[in-house]
Amino acid sequence: MDNLLNTINSPEDLQKLSLDELYELCDEIREKIIKTVSNNGGHLASNLGVVELTVALHRVFSSKDDKIVWDVGHQAYTHKILTGRRDSIATIRTKDGLSGYPNRMESEYDAFNVGHSSTSISAAFGIANAKLLSGEPGHVISLIGDGALTGGLAYEGLNNAGRFKKNFIVILNDNKMSISRNVGSMARYLAHIRTKPGYFKAKGNIESALNRLPHVGKPLHHFLSKSKAALKQILYNSTIFEDMGFYYYGPFDGHDLGKLIDVLENAKNINHPVLLHVLTCKGKGYPFAEQNPGAFHGISSFDIKTGKTAPAGENFSSVFGNNLCALANKDERICAITAAMQMGTGLVGFAKQFPGRFFDVGIAEEHAVTFAGGLAAGGMLPVCAIYSTFLQRGYDQIIHDAAIQRVKVTFAIDRAGVVGDDGETHQGIFDAAFLNTVPNITVYSPAFYDELYTSFQKALYECEGVSAVRYPRGKPMFKPFDFVSTGKAYDTYGQNGADLVIVTYGRLFSFACKALSSLRESGISVRIIKLNRITPVDTDVVAEAAAAGNIFFFEEGIQQGGIGEHFSFLLAQSGYRGEFRLRAITNFVPHATMLQSLSSLGLDDKGMVNMILTEYKK
Amino acid sequence: MDNLLNTINSPEDLQKLSLDELYELCDEIREKIIKTVSNNGGHLASNLGVVELTVALHRVFSSKDDKIVWDVGHQAYTHKILTGRRDSIATIRTKDGLSGYPNRMESEYDAFNVGHSSTSISAAFGIANAKLLSGEPGHVISLIGDGALTGGLAYEGLNNAGRFKKNFIVILNDNKMSISRNVGSMARYLAHIRTKPGYFKAKGNIESALNRLPHVGKPLHHFLSKSKAALKQILYNSTIFEDMGFYYYGPFDGHDLGKLIDVLENAKNINHPVLLHVLTCKGKGYPFAEQNPGAFHGISSFDIKTGKTAPAGENFSSVFGNNLCALANKDERICAITAAMQMGTGLVGFAKQFPGRFFDVGIAEEHAVTFAGGLAAGGMLPVCAIYSTFLQRGYDQIIHDAAIQRVKVTFAIDRAGVVGDDGETHQGIFDAAFLNTVPNITVYSPAFYDELYTSFQKALYECEGVSAVRYPRGKPMFKPFDFVSTGKAYDTYGQNGADLVIVTYGRLFSFACKALSSLRESGISVRIIKLNRITPVDTDVVAEAAAAGNIFFFEEGIQQGGIGEHFSFLLAQSGYRGEFRLRAITNFVPHATMLQSLSSLGLDDKGMVNMILTEYKK
Repeated sequence: MDNLLNTINSPEDLQKLSLDELYELCDEIREKIIKTVSNNGGHLASNLGVVELTVALHRVFSSKDDKIVWDVGHQAYTHKILTGRRDSIATIRTKDGLSGYPNRMESEYDAFNVGHSSTSISAAFGIANAKLLSGEPGHVISLIGDGALTGGLAYEGLNNAGRFKKNFIVILNDNKMSISRNVGSMARYLAHIRTKPGYFKAKGNIESALNRLPHVGKPLHHFLSKSKAALKQILYNSTIFEDMGFYYYGPFDGHDLGKLIDVLENAKNINHPVLLHVLTCKGKGYPFAEQNPGAFHGISSFDIKTGKTAPAGENFSSVFGNNLCALANKDERICAITAAMQMGTGLVGFAKQFPGRFFDVGIAEEHAVTFAGGLAAGGMLPVCAIYSTFLQRGYDQIIHDAAIQRVKVTFAIDRAGVVGDDGETHQGIFDAAFLNTVPNITVYSPAFYDELYTSFQKALYECEGVSAVRYPRGKPMFKPFDFVSTGKAYDTYGQNGADLVIVTYGRLFSFACKALSSLRESGISVRIIKLNRITPVDTDVVAEAAAAGNIFFFEEGIQQGGIGEHFSFLLAQSGYRGEFRLRAITNFVPHATMLQSLSSLGLDDKGMVNMILTEYKK
Repeated sequence: MDNLLNTINSPEDLQKLSLDELYELCDEIREKIIKTVSNNGGHLASNLGVVELTVALHRVFSSKDDKIVWDVGHQAYTHKILTGRRDSIATIRTKDGLSGYPNRMESEYDAFNVGHSSTSISAAFGIANAKLLSGEPGHVISLIGDGALTGGLAYEGLNNAGRFKKNFIVILNDNKMSISRNVGSMARYLAHIRTKPGYFKAKGNIESALNRLPHVGKPLHHFLSKSKAALKQILYNSTIFEDMGFYYYGPFDGHDLGKLIDVLENAKNINHPVLLHVLTCKGKGYPFAEQNPGAFHGISSFDIKTGKTAPAGENFSSVFGNNLCALANKDERICAITAAMQMGTGLVGFAKQFPGRFFDVGIAEEHAVTFAGGLAAGGMLPVCAIYSTFLQRGYDQIIHDAAIQRVKVTFAIDRAGVVGDDGETHQGIFDAAFLNTVPNITVYSPAFYDELYTSFQKALYECEGVSAVRYPRGKPMFKPFDFVSTGKAYDTYGQNGADLVIVTYGRLFSFACKALSSLRESGISVRIIKLNRITPVDTDVVAEAAAAGNIFFFEEGIQQGGIGEHFSFLLAQSGYRGEFRLRAITNFVPHATMLQSLSSLGLDDKGMVNMILTEYKK
């Protein structure tokens, strides 16, 4: 058990192992990853795919001087295990444990925090330029998946980095997938170059022959490089990466350690941007994951023997998907757009039922929004389903390609609010605030399934212009038996003329209801105002809240520029001079379970009760 | 004078003209554009470059069924002139006149509103899919410049559209420029394919021979298409666009009307995405603009005979550039980054003085921010100079690749506030609000040159983490002789214990000072609190404002989630129960001069005075 792995306390220790031992080490790492993820949940398939590649990287590159930037970062478990976090990996994605993603604050071996896609080339190129300017030694490597390569940011990075005059290494980790099957022209193009092994073998041979001479100094290398270019022109098409200014090598088998080590050693010595095309198998070494890499991409805890997770059952995403199918059945204008999140956003059924009206545009949120604007300008009713955190990418497009067009685009914002174990890069805590800045937008924040349906109906058929329905990850929380939403802009719960009013929205309503019960026991009566539509805030609701002398506002979102501050402003404008207390989120939120996060933030029922008991003045 | 142009009341009228007459028409259009821009200012070089291309487009395509989406839209003057706006073109970019950009509300011929770069492929592809789904006839054409092609959104669009099964036309308007000389690998790549005329001639001949047969039905076309692909593989390298799934044709001379009409007629009949590579000359037909297309890109009114504009003199951009040079002289870590706006952001001098620390990354704001994050992670002090409106593109990257990294990245936000004649797509009215949502950020809003320098010094050397300095387009406004900034988080002006307090920031301070004088004559004494740092708001300033019973807050930015609402919240929290009036911007702001816009918004001194006289209660 972990005989070899126990000897690896830092990447330097890899130097002591033979090739055979490195393979054995890979087996031990795989076992550790499978065990860890089966306990904690996390990213499995992507991590299993890059075990050899990561071992090779840390074998070839110096962990002191060289910097590896992981794209998305959901594939960095092996990296964590090899860089002093072998034992703490068991805590990954749990409160106060390791982050599920690279994190500069967690380890000096983590060069850049990640979580969102397609950032690695840009960030790594920044680091490479900093090294060049400051004269610090070392190589910089960006490791990016073929899925992440569909993001425009990756292309912008390639476009900039392709003209670098120094060594800069991009490793394309090609597993034919983003989370689901990869889409678009780039995917087809990669498939095309993958299927030419003979052609690339010929190429590889010529180039490796040429590349065996790189140590003889710049002029000869320059001459060879020119000759190579000429040869390439004659012998075969160049690849898109060569067109972008990179030297392209590959494709290589990403599970052939010896080959990978050779290739990386070679790449190190090339004084030019290099793209290494490495083929890996998502889920490698765990048959269930190999067979169903989509399901084993991000997964909750599972049984190793059977590969089974507890059935997920209904959740906001799946109910959204069903709702949208029901609506689309009645209205042929409804289209659904996802940015490579068909499964995550609950659109698998929609895609099957309405293939012509379903668009998976790849990891490309900006395009998703602008494309939706175009569909709407053409008379369709597009529904753009994007996670809250990723919609940050589309802020400009929401303003410029949707709101300014005066067209009807609806956003289905999944994972709004705290998301739990993915942590700070993934928290959906900004959408309420940034959407609120968009003129003429309407935003709904349902707390329960029935309200989700009502919200979409309103968004699609009652709103002018841009609208959004935002809902949390997972399932609804507690709902009092005697609460039924009126379907209006807000609902109230609890007695009129209570001691104080809690104003909140989304799932915090459930916690507020619990707080109401607790406070009743302390002799404090509470009325709850639940905002169903958070933007624009209804004028009546302000008056209704103002009637109370004591208002507590709880918000599962960023405080600065959020709905609570806006509500405070509206209250003051209406002449309200009573107490207004706001609790919202003021900083990035680290990983933990959703309930732990809400508890730390003081946004669960206990937090609400404590705040009220402390701050409420009769 | 305009003999032919006067006969063109709608694009259909182009059908009546012979090729020779069309050329004559182009001359008349050029003259009109030069005259118009010499009067009103506007975009000259880009418009002169596409006169023939636009005439060819409207000759070949049906203005009823077909849709043209212009990228950026600063080249659509000929389009406006041909589509019923010949006479009103004289009003372009003036209050209540034509917009400088395509606008759906202005004309049914404008398919999509634009202003920001790289949106056209995505939007056009949305419209094309809407047509397909609704069964509406017509072609959709995206016209995109080589500069706009450096934006990741364009790539995301190509990646998605390349797999379309129907006709979809992208015209690459290649003038070797973005606003300045185009940069990056794509630019070099285009230069490479441009310089192979023989090679492309051979290619063109073969393809045009093959293309003469497209009307014989699908099976044969399919067969031919396959043969062509095979031929291509043998005869020459494919282009990057073919790799992305498009049929590529070109390059063609963009001033050869007959050829363009042929090519467009051919492209219409291809049941597949097509990219036409058209070479145009920026500034064509006006020697001054041809020789100096950068200066004649966006230009103020000028003398047609001499090509001279009134000297621009010092402005916030140039002073920023000088300041940054001074700072960079003393600190080798300072780097400057621009997204294709070297001239606009005042960085020409910096680029000359510190070429190694200057980075023009192309029209790629997302990359600019993430790249800056990488530079900072590597120990540099990057200053990312981006217009307010374009920084909207980097919102996610500011959060995810700068703030979450806990690195020091400074943003120089030019054109913050209303920008005048470019109108609603370009207004810098969101940055204060969206930056305010970013945890731990610091934002300065100087009103005068000396404050600009102080702000950068603080941002670079006193702030932890992400900081920004935002300043308006053009020059500072009126400054009272007896006002000197303390350099602190806020300044005050006017007497203590005045009847009321005006709180504001940025250039509105100047208008507030004038309002103060006017109100004195009406017997109302005013004190002004000028926020120098708008995020985080200083706690002392809240207390100082709260000491007055009557507060008026004026903000040249969006109201929802803006600094004014935040200030109102802080006041209420501090126990303030007096009057608080806020005037800010609540909707998109159309084009006009900057002063006209501020006047319409009630944000100039008159607007302030009127509001105070109406709403102030002793």
